[in-house]
Amino acid sequence: MSPRYTDVVAALPATVPFVGPEQQERAMGRPFAARLGANESVFGPAPEAIAAMERAAAQVWKYGDAESFELRAELAALHGVGMENIVIGAGIDGLLGTLVRLLVAPGTPVVTSRGAYPTFNYHVAGSGGALHAVPYRDDAEDPDALLDAVRQTRAPLVYFCNPDNPMGSWHGAARVQAFIDALPEDTVLCLDEAYADFAPPDTLPAMDVSRPNVIRMRTFSKAHGMAGARIGYAIAHQDLIAAHARIRDHFGVNLVAQAGALASLRAPDWLAQVVAQVADARARMADIAAGNGLRALPSATNFVTIDCGRDGAHATAVRDGLVARGIFVRMPFAAPENRCIRVSAGRPEDLDAFAAALRETLRDLG
Amino acid sequence: MSPRYTDVVAALPATVPFVGPEQQERAMGRPFAARLGANESVFGPAPEAIAAMERAAAQVWKYGDAESFELRAELAALHGVGMENIVIGAGIDGLLGTLVRLLVAPGTPVVTSRGAYPTFNYHVAGSGGALHAVPYRDDAEDPDALLDAVRQTRAPLVYFCNPDNPMGSWHGAARVQAFIDALPEDTVLCLDEAYADFAPPDTLPAMDVSRPNVIRMRTFSKAHGMAGARIGYAIAHQDLIAAHARIRDHFGVNLVAQAGALASLRAPDWLAQVVAQVADARARMADIAAGNGLRALPSATNFVTIDCGRDGAHATAVRDGLVARGIFVRMPFAAPENRCIRVSAGRPEDLDAFAAALRETLRDLG
Repeated sequence: MSPRYTDVVAALPATVPFVGPEQQERAMGRPFAARLGANESVFGPAPEAIAAMERAAAQVWKYGDAESFELRAELAALHGVGMENIVIGAGIDGLLGTLVRLLVAPGTPVVTSRGAYPTFNYHVAGSGGALHAVPYRDDAEDPDALLDAVRQTRAPLVYFCNPDNPMGSWHGAARVQAFIDALPEDTVLCLDEAYADFAPPDTLPAMDVSRPNVIRMRTFSKAHGMAGARIGYAIAHQDLIAAHARIRDHFGVNLVAQAGALASLRAPDWLAQVVAQVADARARMADIAAGNGLRALPSATNFVTIDCGRDGAHATAVRDGLVARGIFVRMPFAAPENRCIRVSAGRPEDLDAFAAALRETLRDLG
Repeated sequence: MSPRYTDVVAALPATVPFVGPEQQERAMGRPFAARLGANESVFGPAPEAIAAMERAAAQVWKYGDAESFELRAELAALHGVGMENIVIGAGIDGLLGTLVRLLVAPGTPVVTSRGAYPTFNYHVAGSGGALHAVPYRDDAEDPDALLDAVRQTRAPLVYFCNPDNPMGSWHGAARVQAFIDALPEDTVLCLDEAYADFAPPDTLPAMDVSRPNVIRMRTFSKAHGMAGARIGYAIAHQDLIAAHARIRDHFGVNLVAQAGALASLRAPDWLAQVVAQVADARARMADIAAGNGLRALPSATNFVTIDCGRDGAHATAVRDGLVARGIFVRMPFAAPENRCIRVSAGRPEDLDAFAAALRETLRDLG
């Protein structure tokens, strides 16, 4: 006899939204030469954040502050909202899990884009939700299609990532605001802004925490270079934030991560410098793509999505060729976006390795 | 209009299983002089673990290994089980959340003891489960009563903590094994062994991962002194471990925590030294209690539960008197165990402060 899993769990496969690079390295028997697959910040955390985490290490015998008081106060000041408008979580992955559990029961319709962030889909499946995925349009998420799907399904939750992962595309603030304004007031918009720090001006709509149904997710995993710390935050109406306290893991945020995040917020020069290095890397990656007869899509993120010019099978072969040559990269999951590979911004030496491996891969593929 | 929360969530209060000491400090306007309320290890993490975490800080730009390969390999060797029998999670709190979601849907009966770990109850409520709580017997969890409740309710999940929190009591391995043997094979026993490192010999039953329905939870939060790192693990039959991969947050375990946990496992001398210091502290706390006309209950943990000799109102007054004097302690939630206060093992200076505050508190209470 086996355990009596819930009906939802019994119907689920054991799965993982992403295979981690360490697992690939173990399978290959050697480490990657360049780690450009998970949109981590190879530029690292701010020296001030590293120092704060080093200092906090000896204090880790204490549970972290369940209210993350100092960090929330700093974030509230940064964003011009109240502390009651912010909840800290174990990265956006953790925050997505909590949000989905607040709104999704078995059979609940949920709207997203086909090929958008798979960890969101994974959480929806874990709650038994019914995912309705609309296609991208011109390599970007399509607010009109999302809105239509929300209206048709009466979904209480819709996911929208801006700037978008995995395509790097983005919509301007006015377009996003129009989407927000058109949404039914009882449909929660999960606005994933993991890449906000890299976005050009006029990409992020103004903060408005008076709306009951918009929750914006930010992270220290990308520009702040702290993916392994598992710390992010959500900004929303105080009632929606307060609802998190019904089910969230109150003591779930690492004490060292809280210290590092606070220090990173207080080191804006580092963030600006990372954003500048990422912009340089994007330009170089576009050159590398062009030099190989490929096209880099415009990007408002810390990665570049490169159109390999043919179909998913071809892009998969390019991706596999890069991986086999020690370059960790990934690719979009859904057609026609899966004609592309996705490469995170790297240091010059990472991009040298990428350029060499891409040239060899394409030569071998003929 | 407000968001359309699930029926389960809509029926839940915003709550927190524990108010953190930082929140109390902010309310009081001053820090605690001794932090003895959350069964943290004031003795700190192993120097080797601190060093490993310091080294890992600069690497935190990477997501942690989703498979926690090295750590699981080390733990498998330590416990004589396979890597497929171990899952790493964000502390036992995180692991309890995942296990509950695997087994508990709205209305599912779940068995525990009245006054046992409230975070387990919190997770059950978060899944809409129906909690059946049996009384303690002689200040210990009562396996017979738990078994009866399992049979009556046909619960798929029962929680048993050995050694017990909040009473510090324990059952010997033979008694626990008899409980395991008597359980229906499709009722999962969540055996919370957070305090295993402090238990006397013959407390922990032999590891047997051939059973489909026993999952044992261990943590780095207690003897290893890494509560703020949020890292723990569960040991079980490989099928039950594999089921976690259907819903767990694969990338949710902090990279720095993984490095620290591995280093701590490789520093057994530190662990032994902490356990010895905890034993000394327990003896001293028993003396302090006796010197004030109170009785310390026997303990197999890193805390001592002190019988204040009267009712819950009196123990609450003692607890409040200690807190007002800067000593962070907690107390059991349910009668008649709430005639006690619960005090974590401290360094000599922590216990000096505790002794002085206890004397003053009892004097003022008359």
